[in-house]
Amino acid sequence: MVKKKDLLYEGKAKKVYLTDKEEFLVTEFKNSLTAFNAKKLGSFENKGVINLSITTTIFKYLEKNGIKTHFVENISNNEMVVRRLKMIPLEVVVRNIAAGSFSSRFNIPEGEAFEKPFVEFYYKNDALNDPLLTDEHVLTLKIANQNEINELKLKALKINQALITMFDKADIKLVDFKIEFGKLGSGEIVLGDEISPDSCRLWDKKTDEKLDKDRFRRDLGRVQESYEEVVTRIQKHWGK
Amino acid sequence: MVKKKDLLYEGKAKKVYLTDKEEFLVTEFKNSLTAFNAKKLGSFENKGVINLSITTTIFKYLEKNGIKTHFVENISNNEMVVRRLKMIPLEVVVRNIAAGSFSSRFNIPEGEAFEKPFVEFYYKNDALNDPLLTDEHVLTLKIANQNEINELKLKALKINQALITMFDKADIKLVDFKIEFGKLGSGEIVLGDEISPDSCRLWDKKTDEKLDKDRFRRDLGRVQESYEEVVTRIQKHWGK
Repeated sequence: MVKKKDLLYEGKAKKVYLTDKEEFLVTEFKNSLTAFNAKKLGSFENKGVINLSITTTIFKYLEKNGIKTHFVENISNNEMVVRRLKMIPLEVVVRNIAAGSFSSRFNIPEGEAFEKPFVEFYYKNDALNDPLLTDEHVLTLKIANQNEINELKLKALKINQALITMFDKADIKLVDFKIEFGKLGSGEIVLGDEISPDSCRLWDKKTDEKLDKDRFRRDLGRVQESYEEVVTRIQKHWGK
Repeated sequence: MVKKKDLLYEGKAKKVYLTDKEEFLVTEFKNSLTAFNAKKLGSFENKGVINLSITTTIFKYLEKNGIKTHFVENISNNEMVVRRLKMIPLEVVVRNIAAGSFSSRFNIPEGEAFEKPFVEFYYKNDALNDPLLTDEHVLTLKIANQNEINELKLKALKINQALITMFDKADIKLVDFKIEFGKLGSGEIVLGDEISPDSCRLWDKKTDEKLDKDRFRRDLGRVQESYEEVVTRIQKHWGK
């Protein structure tokens, strides 16, 4: 078993540790919640445990569906062993239904479904406030080459299809989500980071009630209860 | 000869008139200068005359280089007869050297040349503040289809190559520029609008002195003199 060593990096919602094996890291899910580039801060007890739990169920499901992730195993209820990736500094967003920044950017009401899902790239750079990138920006800034851009989009859309099915069985609409990818030593591109109510917009299928971080962003209350609802519903259908 | 009729539309820097022939319009170049989505206003005498003059020289040069424009003929020193186009609501930007919003967005110093020029699309929509669009946004918002996107990018890059040569002979660096396209009745995509120091960043080849609307945007003074310098230099080499 992998042994946790020194802290490598502390992010807004996770801590990342080195281990006794160079190819593995340990990710610790924190209880903190942040929004608007950390201008809004919060937390609730068990949030790390819930998000690790949701991410684990999702990553196992994706692996079964032929999508490689960095997930290896959990070593506690808020710590995951992952394969070490060289992260690509992109927030890869897939949108199925208009919401959030898309709706405000284009004045399109939240809830309007798109004919086809589509992918957006944002530059993962807090100092620049994570700006939207066109493919040409990604190329010009040498963040990824054209083949990698194509691969990231294909993988993101494939993950979207798998997640839509997964959440649908839990009576949840997948509105949009953000994922991050990295490369193994071999150069292979693999899904990293997490997938949780922090990084997805999840609406109840019947009532459109929000079950995600927008409850925190928009002060809608029942944040913890909503995260708990998501973990309960998806694990009922898809296991732990 | 085409006869000017009723005002069809008044924009920030131009008025557009109907004519006695359905397929033609008259564009009148105004003396007004605006910046920051018309939050900053100004004007100088002869600005309309200078910009029509520059646009005419450029459009004639582009036509000779196999690039179709809406230009037909001038009927006064600030009025141009143009073919009527159904405009595509995109500001098509080509960048050769980092400047302006690209530099601020990515914290890259103005003046850094790109390895390869590239195209950006902005949604021509004052109410939305002309937001940057990815290709996926253009498709999702049904502004253009994939073939049209490809054609717009190719045409924009071809125009860029022609303009680089043109301005280089006038000892001017073409930093970046914005153009607009529209469709003829046949569906053919044709260059519309204008090309002038209002819509280009033009720097003196030796001194990098700005010869464009940034002098107005940034209160650098000598606005009129710079526009006059551009028209003098390009017409010396390329005629009227």
